[in-house]
Amino acid sequence: MGVARNIILKVAYDGADYHGWQIQPGKKTIQGRLTEAVRSLCDSNATIRGASRTDAGVSALGQVALAVLDTPIPTGNLAGALNDRLPPDITILQAEDAPADFDLSTGVTSKLYRYTIFTGPVRPVLKIRHCWHLPLKLDVEAMTEAAGILVGTKDFKSFASAADNRENSVRTILRCDLTSDGDWIYINVEGDGFLYNMVRNIVGTLTEVRRGRWKPEKITEIIEAKNRRAAGPIAPAGGLCLMWIKY
Amino acid sequence: MGVARNIILKVAYDGADYHGWQIQPGKKTIQGRLTEAVRSLCDSNATIRGASRTDAGVSALGQVALAVLDTPIPTGNLAGALNDRLPPDITILQAEDAPADFDLSTGVTSKLYRYTIFTGPVRPVLKIRHCWHLPLKLDVEAMTEAAGILVGTKDFKSFASAADNRENSVRTILRCDLTSDGDWIYINVEGDGFLYNMVRNIVGTLTEVRRGRWKPEKITEIIEAKNRRAAGPIAPAGGLCLMWIKY
Repeated sequence: MGVARNIILKVAYDGADYHGWQIQPGKKTIQGRLTEAVRSLCDSNATIRGASRTDAGVSALGQVALAVLDTPIPTGNLAGALNDRLPPDITILQAEDAPADFDLSTGVTSKLYRYTIFTGPVRPVLKIRHCWHLPLKLDVEAMTEAAGILVGTKDFKSFASAADNRENSVRTILRCDLTSDGDWIYINVEGDGFLYNMVRNIVGTLTEVRRGRWKPEKITEIIEAKNRRAAGPIAPAGGLCLMWIKY
Repeated sequence: MGVARNIILKVAYDGADYHGWQIQPGKKTIQGRLTEAVRSLCDSNATIRGASRTDAGVSALGQVALAVLDTPIPTGNLAGALNDRLPPDITILQAEDAPADFDLSTGVTSKLYRYTIFTGPVRPVLKIRHCWHLPLKLDVEAMTEAAGILVGTKDFKSFASAADNRENSVRTILRCDLTSDGDWIYINVEGDGFLYNMVRNIVGTLTEVRRGRWKPEKITEIIEAKNRRAAGPIAPAGGLCLMWIKY
């Protein structure tokens, strides 16, 4: 037995068929599949932790995970060897040795989530697992104005699911904007951290602005309420994708 | 009870989670789900037939089906009402009354299939169900030349799976070409009809040209052999999509 090594893995996955990131007995999870792959390749005691616990149905193109394992395989060969043992909807993009002071959670500077909405009339069957199909006219301008109000360091308690028990609900949103491409709308939210279901609650709230139910200024009221019931409904999981995590 | 009406349905679906078009007891099939939807909405004796029996894993953006049903629902409302009863990965694009002389099979003028290959090094997890991931350099020029040799009225016996028992294996390919977009390659095959697995066998054969194993002229030899073993391997089902059917 050698000494356990700390390896940073950059991971992409289609979360549509998974019960989320976090390992759960008897359920198909991303962490579960990665752990199986690492243990069968390297070391039956290997562990994997993720920087973000993505929910059931949420995908990632830039999740970061830390593997602690004992193996003689050179770091440069790990991604390829692991990919051979992973299902087609999960892939290791990169593997590198973790610096001695690497901290998976507290070292995060910011994360970017992208949420995808399709507004055309026809159900996009080949992409339906990765979007929210809302066949309605969007007021991108009003939504953009509302999104801008969310930027800054604020108490986002109104956007946290009731299940979130963290005492401190102050977070910093660095970017919150919309881009569009034909009938596709992307909502990009970058922050230093997120409360439970925060991005999906933000998206659900912005869609109420879009439907003309609320004016953009309503966002200020919602933030001030510090109450989940003040905000809009939660957007479905499938449209959400973790794009990257910066350290 | 009124008189049974003949309705032409244009259907799109993600075939990745289905055992193909054709209804099979105890299996999840496209025809099965459509039949359930039509029967629960309209008429417990309604039937649905498809113009193409797409295989397990094959998708469609323009399948054509003929529904025979007895319902007072106006044709213009059928697509919407059926879509409410269909899963997210199947949708009716259009419903219209069939002309008196409509023939679902013999009336077909041509069909277009598109096959998608991804040649980049990184597994495209969000699109992996709808492509063949071949992380290799393509010789698009040689493949295009080979594809051109397939155009015309020929005996395509070498490209029919052994399971195809049809006596006449002469078909007309109207178009067979490649388009590309970065690391994505699309092979478009239009014909008046196809033998069993013909498009996937054509794609598998073209990839052997691409790998430099064969010169484009090899295609002529393969056609002349009239023997499945002369051609290349079958390409995986996921990359195939039925784009449209012309009448």
